[in-house]
Parts: sequence; C-alpha cells; structure tokens
Amino acid sequence: MEIVEKPRIGVVGGGSWATAIAKMLTENNGHINWFMRNIESIKAFKVLKHNPRYLCGVDFDIDKISFSDDLDWVIMNSDVIVFAIPSAFLQNVVTPRLQVSLKDKIIVSAIKGMIPDENLLIGEFFHQKYEVPLGQIVIISGPCHAEEIALERLSYLTFSSENLRVARAVAQLFECFYVKTTISDDIYGAEYAAVLKNVFAIASGICHGLRYGDNFQAVLVANAIQEMERFVNAVHPIQRDIKFSAYLGDLLVTAYSQFSRNRTFGTMIGKGYSVKSAQMEMLMVAEGYFGVKGIHEINQQYKVHMPITEAVYNILYERISPTMEIRLLTDELR
Amino acid sequence: MEIVEKPRIGVVGGGSWATAIAKMLTENNGHINWFMRNIESIKAFKVLKHNPRYLCGVDFDIDKISFSDDLDWVIMNSDVIVFAIPSAFLQNVVTPRLQVSLKDKIIVSAIKGMIPDENLLIGEFFHQKYEVPLGQIVIISGPCHAEEIALERLSYLTFSSENLRVARAVAQLFECFYVKTTISDDIYGAEYAAVLKNVFAIASGICHGLRYGDNFQAVLVANAIQEMERFVNAVHPIQRDIKFSAYLGDLLVTAYSQFSRNRTFGTMIGKGYSVKSAQMEMLMVAEGYFGVKGIHEINQQYKVHMPITEAVYNILYERISPTMEIRLLTDELR
Repeated sequence: MEIVEKPRIGVVGGGSWATAIAKMLTENNGHINWFMRNIESIKAFKVLKHNPRYLCGVDFDIDKISFSDDLDWVIMNSDVIVFAIPSAFLQNVVTPRLQVSLKDKIIVSAIKGMIPDENLLIGEFFHQKYEVPLGQIVIISGPCHAEEIALERLSYLTFSSENLRVARAVAQLFECFYVKTTISDDIYGAEYAAVLKNVFAIASGICHGLRYGDNFQAVLVANAIQEMERFVNAVHPIQRDIKFSAYLGDLLVTAYSQFSRNRTFGTMIGKGYSVKSAQMEMLMVAEGYFGVKGIHEINQQYKVHMPITEAVYNILYERISPTMEIRLLTDELR
Repeated sequence: MEIVEKPRIGVVGGGSWATAIAKMLTENNGHINWFMRNIESIKAFKVLKHNPRYLCGVDFDIDKISFSDDLDWVIMNSDVIVFAIPSAFLQNVVTPRLQVSLKDKIIVSAIKGMIPDENLLIGEFFHQKYEVPLGQIVIISGPCHAEEIALERLSYLTFSSENLRVARAVAQLFECFYVKTTISDDIYGAEYAAVLKNVFAIASGICHGLRYGDNFQAVLVANAIQEMERFVNAVHPIQRDIKFSAYLGDLLVTAYSQFSRNRTFGTMIGKGYSVKSAQMEMLMVAEGYFGVKGIHEINQQYKVHMPITEAVYNILYERISPTMEIRLLTDELR
C-alpha cells in the first residue's frame, strides 16, 4: 500500500502529547480531524482556541480542526490516524463496537506502552485485533517531551515501519522548522525501547527518591541501556545500534528530565509513598507501571538478565522495600 | 612488577578531586603523603582539619596525613602516587628538576585531560618522559563528581591498566562503603573518553546557553557517545563496549550534572561570553578547552567524522558564532 498524496489526517487523544502532535501536523499540513472523548473539552477548546487542560500556551487555528467525539467519523474521514492516548485506555477507545474498518488505514502509534494484561505492543494490537497490515503501521519514537514541542524547541523524531516509504511519508507530515525526522524499519525495537525507558525512568526516580546521587544515576542509566539492548536483541534480533536517538536518546530524556511522569512516579515510591497513593497524588498513569509487568512476563520466556527491570517489578508488584531492593541492585551494576 | 602488600600512598594536588581521593584513601588505608604546592593551604588545612578551599565539609584525621610541599619527598616516601591536578599544570609540577625517579612507582592518574600543545595523554606523558612502564600506570575513570564523594553518595570507579593485577590492587585502595570498583585493560580508551566527555559537556553547555531544550540535549548526548566510539575505535581499536560506565556513565554525569565546570563554561559561551571572559569569570580551567584542541589535532591523522568536536573547536578556537555553528551541527545529528 502506498500513502495517498495529500492524506486526510486524524488525531486520537486529548492529552499533552496528542496536543503537541496536533500542533506539528497543523503547522504544515493544514487540516486535521481530532477525536476527543470528552465533548466538554471540545466545546471549551473551540471557545478558548487552545486545549483547556494541556499545553494551554499553544494557540490553534480552529478552522484547521474538525473536532469530533465520534471515533467512527474520524476514522472514516481520515487516511492516516495518529493514536496518542495512554496504552491502558486504548482498548476502551478502539473497541469491537467500531463501525468502520481500520484495514485500509495508515495507523500511527504515538503511544509508548503496552496493552495491559495481554502484553501486546501497540502495533501488534492493531495488527492482530484489527487486521491492519504491518506495512501500514508506523511507530513514532525519539526524545520528545510535548512541553518542548509547545515551546518550539528543536526535536528529533524517528518513524519506524516495515514499509520505509510509508514511514517516510508519515515523517514528512510532522516535519517543520522545529522537528527533524529519521526513519527506521525496527518497529519492535522502537516499541520495546519505549516501554523499557519508562521502566528505567521509574528506577531512576526511585533511586532519586532514596537520595542516590548523580554519580549513581549515570551508572544506572549506562547499565539500563545495556539491559535494553540485551532484551530487544533477544526478542527481535536484527542489526540495530541501541545508541541511536530513538533508543538511547529517548531513555535519556525520560530518565533525566523533570517533565517525566514516570520518573516522578518513581521518586514518590522512593520517598515512601505506596503505589496507590503515588498514583492518586499524580492523577495520571505512569506507563511504566504497566510496562514493567509486561516486560517481566514476556521475559519469563527469554530469561534475559534484567536486574533493573526486576528491581522495579519487585518494588511495584511484590511490595519489596525500595531501600532493600535498590541496595541489592547496586551489586549488580558496574 | 607487583604492587607491595601495604603500599605507601602519595596524593598530588590540592583541589576538590584530590581532596575526594584523599578521603577515599584514608577511609580504609590509614596513612597518606599529600603534596600541595601551596604551603599556606597546608598550614590552614592542619588547623581547620579540612581543605580550606574545596569540599570544606569533609573533616580529616590529620594524624593520618603527612603533608608536604616537596614533591621529591612525597615521591620518595610513596609506592603508589595518585596525581589529581589539572592537566594544564602537570608539566609545572612534574618537571625535569625532580630529584627522584618515578620508574619504580605505581603512577595513578586521576587527571581527565591531555598535556596541552604536546597532545599527550597522561599515561603517555609518564611513560615517555619519565620512563614509567605502561604496566605501572593506572587510569581512574567513571562517573564521579568529587562533591558526591564528599557526601558519601554511592559511586563506581573504573581502574584501567595494562597490568590487571596492578589495576585490581590500586582499585582495592579506593574501595569503601560508598565506592565500588571495576577494572579494565583499556587505558587509551579510558583516557580519550575522559578527554572527549569534557568536550561534549562544553557542547552540551553551549546548546543549553543557546536555549536548546531537553529533547535536543538527549539527541546531542546520544550522538556524542557514537562520536566517542568512532574516535576511540579508530585510535585504539580493541574490543570495548562504549556503553560501560567508564565511558557512557562518565559522559552522562558530566553532560547532565550541575557540578560540571565544562558544562558551565559551555553555557557561558552559548550565552555570548567570550572565551576569555568566561574563563576569568569561572576562575578555573575547563579541561575540555585544551582537550578539544588536542582531539582536533590528533584527528587530522585519523579523519574520524566528529561533528560535535569540530563544532566546539570552531566556536572556541576559530571564533565562529555559536548560534551559527550549532545550527549547522543540528543538520549532522539524528
């Protein structure tokens, strides 16, 4: 399948990343169809000309946007559909009740996570459950905090697909004066790396919360990228350089940035909050909370040495004391 | 040569890193001979029981220290001598006027830099000019801000030598409850990585000063570690994993930490200070200022693709505008 010349674009999601994506897409391409579940948010957006809850500093030309709370309508009227919602909610939005088929669409995932319980990557979900051919699935990755897109700070995105021409065409939709793009054929690597970096960001936060310093953080992150390489090479062994921006860069921005919700979640755990109270306090889901369970379960099969992932899993799901678990981890690092 | 059972230890240098090293060494091993050039500092140290200028919060048991401003005396009375002074000053301290030979000593370099103009690594300097056999030279590297050693935050150091038994023996002198050690035989890699990370930290600072954000910093650092790998593999091609803490970890702590003087120097350049005024304002030398010239000159021979190093060189030595040079660099990264 080739992408049409001027594809009609749909965006699914109302959060900060969806808003940043809408900003990039409207920068060059004019019109988008934008699905939000909450009709009140749509009404407020139209009046305010910005998202009422996220990236409020980003003003939109409302004439370029067709809002809808009807996903069927957005899918029907779009050739390329960009999904940017938390992975935990995807199954509540894309349900078997959909009236229109996704088979002929280009599906772009800006979701960094896995489907909880089923341990499916986002690409696998659309491929297995909605018969979207793999060559029509594109994964967006790279170090990219939505807040910096809002500020038009130069950012680099990687677009991965088994069909590199589709990846290139989708990448071009996002390119603008503050966004540079590259393409890759490593969709599994891109997705697993995105899941793992959230797990490692939680680890980084936990250690920060326990008052480990910058020297230790650097050792943790250096070990984390090695752990990521071991895992993705075991699960999907192709030639890849884990030091590329889509993998290492994305890990760095998440592990080191103050904007990272996964790191913040970890910090609260390290400071002694329970998982539940940390989640309630944050009013949002840290993707890595589901991610670490998925990776842990998938790794039962591969048995890759993953001391950092196991430490986070033990702390979040086995209620092992962070102090104890991280002290044990320090002997595994070098 | 084997290291003696309970070696007498000398420390050379009066700055923060030398003070952190003295703290680690006296933690386990009891006595050290400590050379400082400034007799006033020695006097004040003895009265205050801490370094009067650096890491003032670290109290020492003065009975464990024999201070001297006579380097000959320190060398004569030590089996292992740890050098921790800026590379630019090494030739002013270790001069042909030395009365005692270094040939039979274990020389430990905690210096992260090159000898200016001659473009010698520290190990090469002691080997070529003072006939110290390579197997008696040990390089300390790893992510390790002195300030965090002072706070007894867990840190990891790597000790590199062609003689791994010597590396191990020296490593054991530094081990304590907040310091874990590993050994390596990659002395050239360790030294070049230490020079380059300072260059990359200046680059990181320049971009920060120019108001590039976290997304870009992550891409810059991911590209920097690839550039480091290309260079050290060209200059000293052995099997190594550049993602180990001695290389990637050290780069991360320097590029991301607020304590890094190289990053601070870069930030001032990015904000528009001239090289001279930035150096005057900081009252200290950013090692990377000399390092980038050394690497640039050595690379005339190897012709490795080093866009970040070249950008820093052009800004610091060719007076190219940082804005212009970094904008060109952004097209080289991915």
